[in-house]
Amino acid sequence: MAAGLDSLEECLERHLPPAELAEAKRILYGEAVRQLDLPSAALSAATEREFDLQGYGFGAEPEQLRPPRIVRVGLIQNKIQLPTDAPVAEQVTALHKRIEEIVEVAAMCGVNVICFQEVWTMPFAFCTRERLPWTEFAESAESGPTARFCQELARKHNMVVVSPILERDTAHGETLWNTAVVISNTGAVLGKSRKNHIPRIGDFNESTYYMEGDMGHPVFQTQFGKIAVNICYGRHHPLNWLMYSLNGAEIIFNPSATIGKLSESMWPIEARNAAIANHCFTCAVNRVGREVYPNPFTSGDGGEAHRDFGHFYGSSYVAAPDGSRTPGLSRTQDGLLVTEMDLNLCRQVGDKWNFKMTGRYKMYAKELAAVVQPDFVPNVIKE
Amino acid sequence: MAAGLDSLEECLERHLPPAELAEAKRILYGEAVRQLDLPSAALSAATEREFDLQGYGFGAEPEQLRPPRIVRVGLIQNKIQLPTDAPVAEQVTALHKRIEEIVEVAAMCGVNVICFQEVWTMPFAFCTRERLPWTEFAESAESGPTARFCQELARKHNMVVVSPILERDTAHGETLWNTAVVISNTGAVLGKSRKNHIPRIGDFNESTYYMEGDMGHPVFQTQFGKIAVNICYGRHHPLNWLMYSLNGAEIIFNPSATIGKLSESMWPIEARNAAIANHCFTCAVNRVGREVYPNPFTSGDGGEAHRDFGHFYGSSYVAAPDGSRTPGLSRTQDGLLVTEMDLNLCRQVGDKWNFKMTGRYKMYAKELAAVVQPDFVPNVIKE
Repeated sequence: MAAGLDSLEECLERHLPPAELAEAKRILYGEAVRQLDLPSAALSAATEREFDLQGYGFGAEPEQLRPPRIVRVGLIQNKIQLPTDAPVAEQVTALHKRIEEIVEVAAMCGVNVICFQEVWTMPFAFCTRERLPWTEFAESAESGPTARFCQELARKHNMVVVSPILERDTAHGETLWNTAVVISNTGAVLGKSRKNHIPRIGDFNESTYYMEGDMGHPVFQTQFGKIAVNICYGRHHPLNWLMYSLNGAEIIFNPSATIGKLSESMWPIEARNAAIANHCFTCAVNRVGREVYPNPFTSGDGGEAHRDFGHFYGSSYVAAPDGSRTPGLSRTQDGLLVTEMDLNLCRQVGDKWNFKMTGRYKMYAKELAAVVQPDFVPNVIKE
Repeated sequence: MAAGLDSLEECLERHLPPAELAEAKRILYGEAVRQLDLPSAALSAATEREFDLQGYGFGAEPEQLRPPRIVRVGLIQNKIQLPTDAPVAEQVTALHKRIEEIVEVAAMCGVNVICFQEVWTMPFAFCTRERLPWTEFAESAESGPTARFCQELARKHNMVVVSPILERDTAHGETLWNTAVVISNTGAVLGKSRKNHIPRIGDFNESTYYMEGDMGHPVFQTQFGKIAVNICYGRHHPLNWLMYSLNGAEIIFNPSATIGKLSESMWPIEARNAAIANHCFTCAVNRVGREVYPNPFTSGDGGEAHRDFGHFYGSSYVAAPDGSRTPGLSRTQDGLLVTEMDLNLCRQVGDKWNFKMTGRYKMYAKELAAVVQPDFVPNVIKE
């Protein structure tokens, strides 16, 4: 399958006359986002290092009692750097190097909080159902080489780092988890958050490798706002977003790995719906590029064995609580999306739309408690 | 404010070259829907009666043990027919007449289940905060003139009718409710469903007139599948959709009344997200046109008093569980959207994506029960 358009937004800009373009964008994307004036050194570094750099800003009304709370968030999408049959340590090092050079540019752009893609230190090898060498990519969330690498980045650039990895939990029987590690801008490991919902669809054989997270819905208070991490398939579950939000998250990251033929038309919908429904910012990060594996595997769809996971379509974006959103990064290239936001917008939109106040959570707590009973009878009215 | 584009889809079709149009539509709307071959008598009646008639079809895979369950759903969006200061009875009669002539065309198109817009028998007068004459539009759900009118339609056309009205509940202290009455194709009143979440935003002063519904999340077993009604503002609450779905709804109608400057960029997102998240069809119906009131009112936004509610943008559409959707009806004209669907698609998509199986509702029932406690402490991790 060809990768197709490099970017939907770019296609619309190329073909629609200005007045209709503005109206189409208003209907599709909401209130226009502001283009950030990024430093020219950052722009030329991005060109040189071959990645798509885009910057946008969301505003908020001035308030009397709270100063604006301006934060710059960076999202990175990237291809794997070496073939999947290269030695594990070399693959990890090459990815560290690639991220390091993109984070340097993020620092030039004044980014305060950066988030990488799901299990960013490895190819998304769960399609294979093989163990070695893939399980060797798993490491300690708190003290593995990637934690140390991110701590250095965080200290060097005074940046909060959200680092989604494959975690090996030696304290609990060497269990594997799909985990995001949150590192403070001081360099301290602030904590971790585990993927709460695990897919069993297409080549996403992740339930073969790890189980549903057991840490609930933690929110991390950072110097740059309260953040949470809803990993990948959790974006399909509105309750997952809701619980992070009810715990106070102002920005919810959604580091993902998903491919065109499976989910591309759902991608612009789900994280954006979550931003609207929960009065918060959501940051959807997808991998990009094609990953080819040493051994052939089948996909449970009657097709031939093959060695290719298909096309990860990038298109990382940020959605705001007022329903507006940034354009997506490239569908085919590595990229860094820099987004400036005033976190005061969350409460302002909440006070306007009142979804929490009108949420009727007592009713739903009761109804859900009934639903999960073995003898639950759905409320169906018949003639 | 000018009403702008008549239709986003039409604008894209007019300007994008074929290959890019196909790719843009795939990214924006998912799997292409089939155009229905509607009877020419229906098409010419629609032209004559001055409304937009469109027809689309969603398919499903053939199964061995279940025959296809093909249903045709009709959504009607319409302007009010008389000025808002015309006598109440005349306004109602004129709306009955308009609906009758559109439903006749729906019958020619083989529609099995039809849904009208929110409180379709009246202007959306809650912006005024005045009582008389607006409360005179309220009637008994089961035995009012509109119930009788819909029963006749249902019997005549062998059609299930979803009729959202302002209900006067004389058995409970003359309470008003925002209610959808569901009438079987036999003509029997099958039951009713009340609006569960009431807005307090902009000119939507509905909490002045009626309270949150007290009937939970009923699902109606009809001859044409299991249906439910999530009225208007309830579309912003993912838990509301979820509970209808957990009670078994295969089609959830969302009769609405919403205006351009408030919600237009959220409109394509929310019902579609609900179709995806709940493995069901969702049908979003909005009013259309501009409604002007006898007395001026202010909008709580610092602006001048005015007599106009703004532009209801129509754009009614149907979303399928696989994330695809129909184009929207006109943004400016009355319309009938006919959609054919194979209800078998719901379980097929559910078996593929497994959002119910992976939903972890026990965890959420527990977490929500904690959230609603007065002494709830959010799960926030600090350095």
